[in-house]
Amino acid sequence: MNKADLIAEIKFTKSFLCVGLDTDLDKIPKHLLNTEDPIFEFNKAIIDATKDYCVAYKPNIAFYECLGPKGWESLKKTIDYIPKNKFTIADAKRGDIGNTSNYYAKTFFEYMDFDAVTIAPYMGEDSITPFLEYKDKWVIILALTSNKGALDFQFITDLNGTKLYEHVLKKTSKWGTSDNIMYVVGATRAEGIGSVRKIVPSNFFLVPGIGAQGGSLQDTANYGWNDDCGLLVNSSRGIIYASEGMDFAEKAGEAAKEVQQEMEKILLAKNFI
Amino acid sequence: MNKADLIAEIKFTKSFLCVGLDTDLDKIPKHLLNTEDPIFEFNKAIIDATKDYCVAYKPNIAFYECLGPKGWESLKKTIDYIPKNKFTIADAKRGDIGNTSNYYAKTFFEYMDFDAVTIAPYMGEDSITPFLEYKDKWVIILALTSNKGALDFQFITDLNGTKLYEHVLKKTSKWGTSDNIMYVVGATRAEGIGSVRKIVPSNFFLVPGIGAQGGSLQDTANYGWNDDCGLLVNSSRGIIYASEGMDFAEKAGEAAKEVQQEMEKILLAKNFI
Repeated sequence: MNKADLIAEIKFTKSFLCVGLDTDLDKIPKHLLNTEDPIFEFNKAIIDATKDYCVAYKPNIAFYECLGPKGWESLKKTIDYIPKNKFTIADAKRGDIGNTSNYYAKTFFEYMDFDAVTIAPYMGEDSITPFLEYKDKWVIILALTSNKGALDFQFITDLNGTKLYEHVLKKTSKWGTSDNIMYVVGATRAEGIGSVRKIVPSNFFLVPGIGAQGGSLQDTANYGWNDDCGLLVNSSRGIIYASEGMDFAEKAGEAAKEVQQEMEKILLAKNFI
Repeated sequence: MNKADLIAEIKFTKSFLCVGLDTDLDKIPKHLLNTEDPIFEFNKAIIDATKDYCVAYKPNIAFYECLGPKGWESLKKTIDYIPKNKFTIADAKRGDIGNTSNYYAKTFFEYMDFDAVTIAPYMGEDSITPFLEYKDKWVIILALTSNKGALDFQFITDLNGTKLYEHVLKKTSKWGTSDNIMYVVGATRAEGIGSVRKIVPSNFFLVPGIGAQGGSLQDTANYGWNDDCGLLVNSSRGIIYASEGMDFAEKAGEAAKEVQQEMEKILLAKNFI
């Protein structure tokens, strides 16, 4: 999917919500466990219930990988089921030497037809560029993450006062364009979002950390907004586990709608719609 | 596997070679493509031919992942086939927030019974500690990698002259011990190996970059040696693709034996055996 189509979908849906499909056998409603593929059955119901309120879906690959080949089958069925007008993100946080990153790109862009994959930047340019050779596909590079461990290395400051995450932004943004690179910027560090926006004015941000992790949607929009909206705000547990009962899909839909309505107000206030 | 067993295996085999199972359908001998599981057939033959000359095997997960569920089946069969006295490394370069890293740990330490998994450090402590809760299992943290992109971020220097990779070593080595943490240190930067050894005197290093990437075994041993040997030197393409013909396994065995004999000389010179 290209940037124009993503922006059109944001305007049409009046939302910049990404639903995180962190689907866990231990957390999905018990009545699904008797079906042939409980993970896919759950995802299918969640997608049906939320697709009018979101623009993107993001399965975190760890939750599928831990189930072995069956997990990969559930993931493939899920990605094939997601409507084509939705932006799809493989939250995989991959990154290896160039020769190997080619194979990760194959996995997520060819074997599975994801629009984007999340990437860890530690290994530098040749670990990222193989993903950028695909037309209308995206990398989403970890910049400022939402977790506590973000403080361990991402804020290391060089002699010129530049922090590691700022180096990552400055350098990686030259390897592609705002048409194929996005950044992970955690909502738990709202002022951080502002400093990232100054360095990369045009790129979209994937923002985790709303909901369970405590970040604010309003702050994220205040600090991260650009002329294209420039934000995909993710919510996983707050939506997909809104209820553990037979009504799990209905409640997930309601939770997604609630976020969408807050987003619609922001989009109106910004004169974007 | 614990450290004492690994050291015993090094002494018994007179080798600190790790064979990288970067098995690629486009590169394995054509006659295997008619078998039911060409990837596993290739690995099985390579393992049989090399097991007397190496102490560890390291499948790079990218090569299996890109084949979908079938790739994961080939990987599982491979890990189950490797003799129990060999150290097994999932070269996965994973790393995510704590809740998610739990699932990656489950994948590689429970679903697959690997001894170790490689980890990218960018997200900090909570992305690494879930792996350290498993007894006799290891994380191998990217410190100084062998690729060109290593220069992009790993050498960023702070106000006190400490480089990013040195920060990674100093900080992460406190999260575990030399009984459950190793480091990836590329052979292409021999003096770098020496500077890493000064910071973490006790930890084992996994050293890629010998062979195709141009690193020297002798330099690696000179700069990286410690009282436990402290080195697992990886070779992938130079061994497993030594021949493309019917004799691929035999030639792989010969290539592994050649490295082992060079290693035996080093172990003798160091009075380790």
